[in-house]
Amino acid sequence: MAIFISGVAGFIGGNLAAELLGRGERVLGFDNLSLGRIENLRPLRRQARFAFERVDLAEAGPYLTALRRFHRRHRITEVWHLAANSDIPAGLADAGIDLRNTFLTTFNTLETMKALAIPVIAFASSSAIYGDLKGALLTESTGPLFPISNYGAMKLASEAAVTAAAESHLERAFIFRFPNVIGAPATHGVILDFVRKLRATPRRLAVLGDGSQRKAYLHVDDLIGAMLHIRRRSRERISCFNIAGQDRGATVRFIAEAVVAALSPGAAIAYGRGGKGWVGDVPRFNYSTGKLQALGWRPRLGSREAIRRAIRQIIVQETGKNP
Amino acid sequence: MAIFISGVAGFIGGNLAAELLGRGERVLGFDNLSLGRIENLRPLRRQARFAFERVDLAEAGPYLTALRRFHRRHRITEVWHLAANSDIPAGLADAGIDLRNTFLTTFNTLETMKALAIPVIAFASSSAIYGDLKGALLTESTGPLFPISNYGAMKLASEAAVTAAAESHLERAFIFRFPNVIGAPATHGVILDFVRKLRATPRRLAVLGDGSQRKAYLHVDDLIGAMLHIRRRSRERISCFNIAGQDRGATVRFIAEAVVAALSPGAAIAYGRGGKGWVGDVPRFNYSTGKLQALGWRPRLGSREAIRRAIRQIIVQETGKNP
Repeated sequence: MAIFISGVAGFIGGNLAAELLGRGERVLGFDNLSLGRIENLRPLRRQARFAFERVDLAEAGPYLTALRRFHRRHRITEVWHLAANSDIPAGLADAGIDLRNTFLTTFNTLETMKALAIPVIAFASSSAIYGDLKGALLTESTGPLFPISNYGAMKLASEAAVTAAAESHLERAFIFRFPNVIGAPATHGVILDFVRKLRATPRRLAVLGDGSQRKAYLHVDDLIGAMLHIRRRSRERISCFNIAGQDRGATVRFIAEAVVAALSPGAAIAYGRGGKGWVGDVPRFNYSTGKLQALGWRPRLGSREAIRRAIRQIIVQETGKNP
Repeated sequence: MAIFISGVAGFIGGNLAAELLGRGERVLGFDNLSLGRIENLRPLRRQARFAFERVDLAEAGPYLTALRRFHRRHRITEVWHLAANSDIPAGLADAGIDLRNTFLTTFNTLETMKALAIPVIAFASSSAIYGDLKGALLTESTGPLFPISNYGAMKLASEAAVTAAAESHLERAFIFRFPNVIGAPATHGVILDFVRKLRATPRRLAVLGDGSQRKAYLHVDDLIGAMLHIRRRSRERISCFNIAGQDRGATVRFIAEAVVAALSPGAAIAYGRGGKGWVGDVPRFNYSTGKLQALGWRPRLGSREAIRRAIRQIIVQETGKNP
């Protein structure tokens, strides 16, 4: 028996694989390595119970062939579908990228599961499906769902395909609406961006927007804890959960100051204007995690602690040195 | 200046084109003629202000080329995107049909509009995006949205792509969540199904399910009236409206009896079991049209009158004779 992870070479995929292997599971992972990195998998590939193949999940035929080959040897009992385009600006410039790498990967995953009769999916959705609801409380049943980025649109499209598949051929589906997840190995995101900018120009950090934008951040260790908690405890056939930290979050200003303090103390921070950083970014965000709390889960790190830990990890990742 | 209709040879597309031409608009229509029928367009093609091309909207390149060619002569100011796979059982058997004909047609329409800077879309969505919410009142902001058919999933996916496009390059978007629409020329649906069955076996009509399933039905004339009312009156940048009749609806039993009475009086009706007709069908359905009523619109026909009118029209369509 085995668990399959799509997008295993990405930030969350690699961490999830390590956790599942640590719990004694057999894990198969695919990745097209467009954003995920093979180096992320080096520690995993030493383990006998881990297998990896480079497969482009947007190509239905090769995907089915590769998964069937493994499935015949070790029956796959569930799929953790994490593969997606996580480069949101790239999707803004070319909607075809999100179509292919975020949505068609989901569609093909579901078709492959149907063909191989794999009964359970856990899908990494996103808080971006909610769009900009002007500060309204976002629970799992809030509507309307008018995403404002192609990324959010293709995540909502994927959720829809998952729920239709749950009606037709799946036994159970888990939909995790991810928050801003931070940690290492980072491939994108505001902390990595700030660290790289500050290494290039150590005396000055330029920030998009006025720095007032506040979001809750969750460390990847807590994210994986939450998903596995839901997987184990939820009894709904379609288990849809917002996952996030449970504090007021932290501002971009806090992150900028923490990165400067850790990497280049005394550097000037130059803010832009307005509350939005880029098209598709949602300035006010009131994300309910009441359902997850009611299931008995609490994060170990608050937003600020998560940010500080992630900054340390990303500085190590980028510089090879502890800050 | 012109209005573009995708899926113009379909049931609703042909009726919409006729209405817009009657109001003095110039209309361009595309259809791949997979479900739409060229004969439906015969009365329209006599009009100088109507143009038609056979184009498969799932093919991005030919779509853009064909629309650009027309757009250079007559500037297209808005798009009414109706093209979709309306054959729901076909989509159940092969999810790729809904992917291609319902979702990719929308994706390509939005990309084409971006390339040609066409600012306004009116999109035919569906009540199927709501899935089975166990009788809960379905308003435009009800959630969660867990569609239970591939058709509903690809309509929700399309809505998501529309709202993301509204954030990035459209001026305005209209999302019409269609009810069960009836009338002629019918290409699918329960009335056509019953008429055809009864012509094949005039003494006996077999019905899926126990006949107790109740739905509100809207005649296509009222549907088009509602859409044009919303187009004219709504001021929201994303104008999303449930459209439906405003009565308690009618049961499958009522439809079966009315078809028998009109076409083959005295025929026996044989019911199946259970409240659901097929996978993806939603037995209890409480569809709010409060938002549309507040905008000042009322249907001219109730569900039962709409059914009776549609039965007469479909019998003429199928037999060439008035019942």
